[in-house]
Formats: sequence, structure tokens, C-alpha cells
Amino acid sequence: MNVQEKMKELFQAWGRISDVSRARALLEWDQETVMPPSGIPHRAQVLATLSGLAHEKLTSPETGEILAFLEERKEELDPLEKAHLREAARAREKAVKIPRDLVERMSRATSLGLEAWKRARERADFSLFLPHLKEILDLKREESRCLGGGGDGKDLYDPLLDDYEPGMTSARLEELFSGLQGPLSALAARVRESGRRVDLSPFQGDLDPEAQLAFGRKVLEAMGFDFRAGRIDRAVHPFCSGHGPGDVRITWRYSRTDIRPALFGLVHEGGHALYEQGLDPALDRTPAGGAASLGVHESQSRLWENLVARSLPFWEGFAPVLEKALPRRKGPADPEALFRAAGEVRPSLIRVEADEVTYNLHILLRFRLERELLSERLSLPDLPAAWNDLSEELLGVRPGNDAEGVLQDIHWAMGALGYFPTYTLGNLYAAHLFEAARRDLPDLEEGFRKRELLPLREWLREKIHRHGSVLPPERLVTEAAGAPPSPEALLAHLENKVSVIYGA
Amino acid sequence: MNVQEKMKELFQAWGRISDVSRARALLEWDQETVMPPSGIPHRAQVLATLSGLAHEKLTSPETGEILAFLEERKEELDPLEKAHLREAARAREKAVKIPRDLVERMSRATSLGLEAWKRARERADFSLFLPHLKEILDLKREESRCLGGGGDGKDLYDPLLDDYEPGMTSARLEELFSGLQGPLSALAARVRESGRRVDLSPFQGDLDPEAQLAFGRKVLEAMGFDFRAGRIDRAVHPFCSGHGPGDVRITWRYSRTDIRPALFGLVHEGGHALYEQGLDPALDRTPAGGAASLGVHESQSRLWENLVARSLPFWEGFAPVLEKALPRRKGPADPEALFRAAGEVRPSLIRVEADEVTYNLHILLRFRLERELLSERLSLPDLPAAWNDLSEELLGVRPGNDAEGVLQDIHWAMGALGYFPTYTLGNLYAAHLFEAARRDLPDLEEGFRKRELLPLREWLREKIHRHGSVLPPERLVTEAAGAPPSPEALLAHLENKVSVIYGA
Repeated sequence: MNVQEKMKELFQAWGRISDVSRARALLEWDQETVMPPSGIPHRAQVLATLSGLAHEKLTSPETGEILAFLEERKEELDPLEKAHLREAARAREKAVKIPRDLVERMSRATSLGLEAWKRARERADFSLFLPHLKEILDLKREESRCLGGGGDGKDLYDPLLDDYEPGMTSARLEELFSGLQGPLSALAARVRESGRRVDLSPFQGDLDPEAQLAFGRKVLEAMGFDFRAGRIDRAVHPFCSGHGPGDVRITWRYSRTDIRPALFGLVHEGGHALYEQGLDPALDRTPAGGAASLGVHESQSRLWENLVARSLPFWEGFAPVLEKALPRRKGPADPEALFRAAGEVRPSLIRVEADEVTYNLHILLRFRLERELLSERLSLPDLPAAWNDLSEELLGVRPGNDAEGVLQDIHWAMGALGYFPTYTLGNLYAAHLFEAARRDLPDLEEGFRKRELLPLREWLREKIHRHGSVLPPERLVTEAAGAPPSPEALLAHLENKVSVIYGA
Repeated sequence: MNVQEKMKELFQAWGRISDVSRARALLEWDQETVMPPSGIPHRAQVLATLSGLAHEKLTSPETGEILAFLEERKEELDPLEKAHLREAARAREKAVKIPRDLVERMSRATSLGLEAWKRARERADFSLFLPHLKEILDLKREESRCLGGGGDGKDLYDPLLDDYEPGMTSARLEELFSGLQGPLSALAARVRESGRRVDLSPFQGDLDPEAQLAFGRKVLEAMGFDFRAGRIDRAVHPFCSGHGPGDVRITWRYSRTDIRPALFGLVHEGGHALYEQGLDPALDRTPAGGAASLGVHESQSRLWENLVARSLPFWEGFAPVLEKALPRRKGPADPEALFRAAGEVRPSLIRVEADEVTYNLHILLRFRLERELLSERLSLPDLPAAWNDLSEELLGVRPGNDAEGVLQDIHWAMGALGYFPTYTLGNLYAAHLFEAARRDLPDLEEGFRKRELLPLREWLREKIHRHGSVLPPERLVTEAAGAPPSPEALLAHLENKVSVIYGA
């Protein structure tokens, strides 16, 4: 058998694995959007069975044999084939190295942990969640060791981080993030000291949800969201769910009095959706056919949300459309006023409500603390105070209780350690890519003024979307932008915005 | 290992098989209701993979070993366990005995056959479909022989029929159907000769679809459809899709000028849905946990549609509700007028538009012809003329072309031979069960006048729904009704209706 025939076998096996995952994703979408409530127990069962089947196929001796054969004759593979082999081997290694018993213990621990976290948050009492978080941390350390973490001076955090952001290490993150903390804290302080508050009334009023959606759809159409290959539904949490480039679904929620949750939520999820719709159909169901990483995915949502839809040129284009769609807003449809309202900076306690500047400080806080917890430099009983101290140091605000502080996020209760940094990586990549797009497309922002957003989608599709995970994430961003990512573009963007809006 | 432990293994294996089928059913529901159009090719791929996985599990040596062990020690099983074994062995036997190669040839033949059928129907030209139907018939004969048909004087039709209606044979069908043909043709002739036409205006007018749905929902609520365990969506074809008793979905369509397609469609699918919602949750994911047969399923939909929602007591209860929901109808909300309009009999060419009386004549026609085709007593080039002659004989109407005749149904192009009889079995069982329910519940129809339909659902749940496929279909109906099914109840019901409405 030659490598081409073996490669075909790999594609066949992978196609089936990805079909099962895709079925699972659809069942999850269904559960969050339309499933009747009494369906929950049956659905959980079906999802568990499908997970088990995908795991079985991934870890089967047959799949192992295919990968071993290709590894052996790697020098005969072209670069694309090497990428498929790398991605497949990566997925299989994780599945094989983490014993089933550990997966089951983790599943039980997070299932109980989630329940305890909800109760603890309701009562703002971290002590109720502490024993569960302890167990989850123990299991995450065990998981990391299974994947090579801990030994030989290797950071325990790295294998967990790598799960969400292939190739990323804590050392590289420190390098990227170290330049952020000081300048961002300084920006937050400048805003506080300016004493200015932006006027939010251009986005506020008595706002019909259907009209909000209609306006959001107009923006998504301009972005190039393909409605024949996607749909929008209501859900408790906004999310994007991709089932191949031909079927990408986003969800939205709204406030009756403020268009920002609906609008920026739709644009954010729309950015994720353009990535999924832009994946190369020829790579569909192959190992390198999916998105490059969570960080790159988040760069697409943040780019459209923050760099496009919160910009002045965007509002110069869309102010009249907003005025027509939602005439009953309190403030004027003046582009400058809308831009300022969209750019509000206000240090606050809750991450999911944070603005562009302070959001990344929330992430830095979590990144520091989860690393210290994992390495046991910080003990669990000291966590709430450490959180509050760091919040005061970075953001200038101190939580009044655990619910506003250490208990606000679901991630640790779900066992998602190493996930938070991908949010800030996304912001960083977004600004870096947008800067490159502006260089490559000199008329880009002039186009925004005419509601022409498609050239940006085409640039992103060409540079990012269509490549799937053929290149590792940081290399993909580097090749797209012509230079390795750094905090500079993000900081320049934020400093400029703060100067214009807060005159500080 | 004892039989109890082996039984547990069977349940575990079966749970996974049924989870995969359930995932498949959800993906199909999604495709018919909400999936964006560009999702089709990916979806087909996922569905094929899930079919393959379920087939793999069903035919695996492990499943075979479990069943062989239990078969060996059958005398130690209780009746319920025996039913599980029977159902599991039945499903596995079909999967094992039909070679993969035949499944694939059939899949190709029906896929091409469906395309050819569509073209042929558009051009009303049977000759375009003939070579495809020939191949499908050849393959169905081969399939039947794999399952023991053809040899030893065994009817080729029986294994195909058994696929839809376990235990049913063509001999038993002949027995049940032989008494129908004459009386039904006579009834159709009596209606024709009466010269009367019923006034349909009570159901007609300019009818808001939302108001039609709201009225339909009121009827479904009265029937006891559990909206926490189900939902209603628009689709091109009405259907019911069950994903366990906690999640049962129906679809509907409407006419802007006539409430009958929406209303009777919703009640019909609602009858199917009550069956699925009423399955015993303790039997969920087990071999005997699903519906007994297509015929029994159809009995539930037809019972609610024809015996309940087309009855005078029902309209005595619901006429005022209809008037309130849809005041812009042309005719009066008079119970008697509504009952007559709902009971219209009009021999016509197209099965799916047929009334209660002539519907079964359409089925008899197809049953006769598909048996003759299969046994090669009728040759394919003679089929269109045979269809037209039999239509004239049974219904008194003669198709003007092949599209109105032999090409009207999709079933043969899909390879569904032996399916049609289950529709008339459903009608027969429905009338038989309803007669028994009236005996058991003397106030039944008095309740209808007060819109109290729940006692009937409870009776059906107790007698039919909760039993899954623990009993073979005909035995289930026999035990529920206290007597074996016969055409008598159906004929009595129809004769009475024709007498009242057509005075003939």
C-alpha cells in the first residue's frame, strides 16, 4: 500500500469521526434553541453515546495503524498531507493518553461541580464550591501529566492551554501578555480620572425586538453572512454553531431598552459564522478542515464586533439605517454620538459586561490566578482574597462578595482551565489582522462609510478562513498579517479610542 | 454469566443503537423544518454515517453473541424479556440477512428511481420510470428471498409486508380486506348516485394561518398533547417525529382558504404524537420500547382524525371555539354543518386527497397491483392500463394520464413495497378500537360535546401506547379491543356516516 492509498483511508476514517461530532453539535444546537424541556434526559443520553462512538473510532487500532504508517513515511507527504497527519495525530494522542477512567471521573466532578457552583454563586459563598474546585484542579493536574505536563520542568498549564490553542505555551503567552497589563491598567485609570461619561441614549429607548433583529440582519447581510448557509435563532446565550460551511447557525438575545446586547452579540457571532462559512469545502470532514484554534476563532468575532461595528466609519454608514429601523431611540442617530456610545469604557466587576479596554484585564486576572492554582503556589482558601486584591490592582474595583468576584464565571466549574487566555489572544490577533487588512486595502474604511463590508470578509476568507487548521494558529496569523502578532496593534487601537472619546 | 446479566448487556447495546437512530431522526426532522438549504450535502453524509454505525452495532458479533446466549436459555426469560429478545432478534436478522451489497444497490436504485419518478410524473409518462421500477422490483424480490420469501410456496410479498407490520401476512390481509372492497365500492356508488354535495363553506374563507394554528393548538391541548414534551413546526409535508416520550414533534401546513388541511393534518399528526408521548418511559431505549407497527401507529392518527375530529359530538364541542378563532369563514359555525363538511365523500383520482370512504379503495388498488407486480403475474408495460381499469372498477373514476394514475405516489420509487396496506390496517384498527373505547367509556361522546377528550387519550395510553412493541401488533389490538380486528367496525362507521350525510 502506498501513502496515497493510506491517506484515503485516513480521510474515510476521519469523515466518519467528524460526521459523528457534527451530529453531536446539531443536537446541542437543538437543545439550546428549540428542544422541548422534557427532552433533556433523553438528549443527554444520546450525546453521551455519540461522544463514546467518536472516541471509540478515534482511539481504535485501525486509526492508530493508519497514522503509524503515515508517520513512518512522512517524508513522502506534501505539506497539506503533513498538516492532516499532524492534526489527526494530535487529536488521537489526547484521546489515547487520557484514560477513560480519568475522563469519567472528570465528567462526574464537573457535573457535581457545576451544580455546586450554581448554588455557591446564588449564596455568594465560595466555600460551597471549594471542595469541588479542589477535585477539579487535582484531576486537571492528572490530565496535564498524562499529556506530558509537569515533568522535566514542563509547565503543568501548557498541555491544558494547548488543548484550546495548539502550539501555544505559557512562556509565549507571558511574552504576549506582559506588555498589556501596565498600559491597559493605565488606560482604565485615565478614563476614570477624566471624569467623563459617554451618553448611551443613542442606543437606548423602547426597542421592538423584531426591529432590533431586522437591523442586525442588515448588518450581517453587509458583512456577507450567507443566509442560505445559515440561520439565526433566539437562545439564552449567544453562540455560533457550525455544521460544515453550508450550515452555520448563530443565536441572539436582546434587551428591550438597549440595542447593544442584540446588535454587538449578532455581529460577534456573525464574525464566528463568517469563519465557519468560509472554511474550504474541499477540506470538509478532513483532519485539517476545522478552525485553527479558539484564539483565531475569537479574533474573527472580536474583529467584526470591536474593530468594525464600534468604529466611526461603520456608524457613518449605518446611522441612517439604525434611525429608520428603530426610530424610538432616546438619543440622536448621529455617527459621532453612536461611535462614542459604542466605545464606552467603564471598569466594572463582571467580565461578560466589560468594555474593550478592561475586558483584557479581566482575562489577565484569571490567567494569573489559574496558573497559580494549578501549580499550588496559591492555596484554594486564599483564592477569593487574591481575586479581590488583583481586581483592585488591575481594574481599580473590588468585588463586594464572591458572586461578583471569584464565582462569576462558569469555566472552572466546567473544568475549562487554560481557556480564558484565548479571549485575549483573540483581541490581540483581531487588532493585528485588522491593521494588516487596512494596509492591504487602503479604501477599507471609506467602504464602511458606504456600508461596503464585503472586501474585509474577502480578505479574511483569503487570509484566514479558507485555510482551516492547515497552519498552526500563530503561524496562520503571522502569514496573514505579514508579521508575528504582538500587543502593539491592540494597544494602539485602544489608546487612540480612549484619547478620542475620553480626551484623556 | 446468568440471563439477567446478559439481559443487561442487551439493554446496553440496544441503548446505543437506539441513541444513534434517535440522533438520525433528529437530523431528519431538522432537515425538513429548519436546516438552511446549503446544508443538504453535508447532512446526507452525516445521515449515511449514522446509518452505517447503527448497522455495524446491530450486526456485530458481540450483539450476535448476546442474542444467541439468550435464545439458548429462553425458557428462563419472563414474557417481557422474551418480547425484548424477539424484537432484537427480528431487527438483527433483517440487518444480517440482507447483504450490504444489496443494501447499496437498493440505495442507488431508489436514488435514481426517485429522480426518474419526479421527471416521469412531471411529463405524465410512465415509460421514463419503467426501467427504474423494474430494477427496484428485481431488488425487492432479491431482498424478499434473503428473508425467506419465495421458497416453499411462501409469498414473496410477506417478508416485505412484515418489515412494516410485524407478523402480518398477505393471507391474513386478504382475509381482512376481502370484506372491504364490495361494501366500500357500493358506498362510493351510493354517494355518487345520491347527487348530493355537502356545503364546505363552514371551513372556507380568508383564513389567517396563525389563527388556524391557534385553533389547532386548542384541539391538541384538549387531546392531551404535552407541549412540554413536544413542539409544532411548519414543513412542506406534515409528519410526526418521536425522539423518546419526552420529545415528540409534529409539523403542519395550511391553505389560506380552507382550514381542513391544517386542522385535520394537526389532529392526525397529533394522534401519532400521543402514541409516542405515551410510550412507557421505563421501556425507552429497549428493543420492545418503540411503537408496535406502522399499522398501529396509523390507527392512532386516523382514530383522532376520522373518528373524533370528523364526528358530530366533536363539532358540538368545538364549533364555538372555531367561530371565535376564525370568524371570517364563509359558512356558519353550526355543528351539524361542520360535521357534514368534515364528512364529505367524493371519489377522486388522487389518494392523498381522498375521503374516509374512498381512501381505502385507493389502498386496495395499490395492494392488488403491487402483489401482482412482485409475483410477475402483471408485466410492467401493462401496469398503467391495469391501474386505470382498476380505478374505474373500484372508484368509478379513470385517470386521464399517468401522473393522475400510476405515477401519483412516491412509495414504489422509494422501494417501499408492502407499505400501503398499513394505511388501511390503520383505518380498520382505528374503528375497531374506537368501538371498544365507546363500550368501555359510556360517556365518551357526551364528553366530546364538552371538549373533554382526555378520557379517550387515557384509554388509548392504557390499552395501546404504553405497551410499546411488547405484544405483536394484531395481538395488541385484539387485547385492547377484547376481540380480533375485523372490517365490521369500519364499515359500520362509514355506512352510518354516508347514510346521515348523503341520506343514501
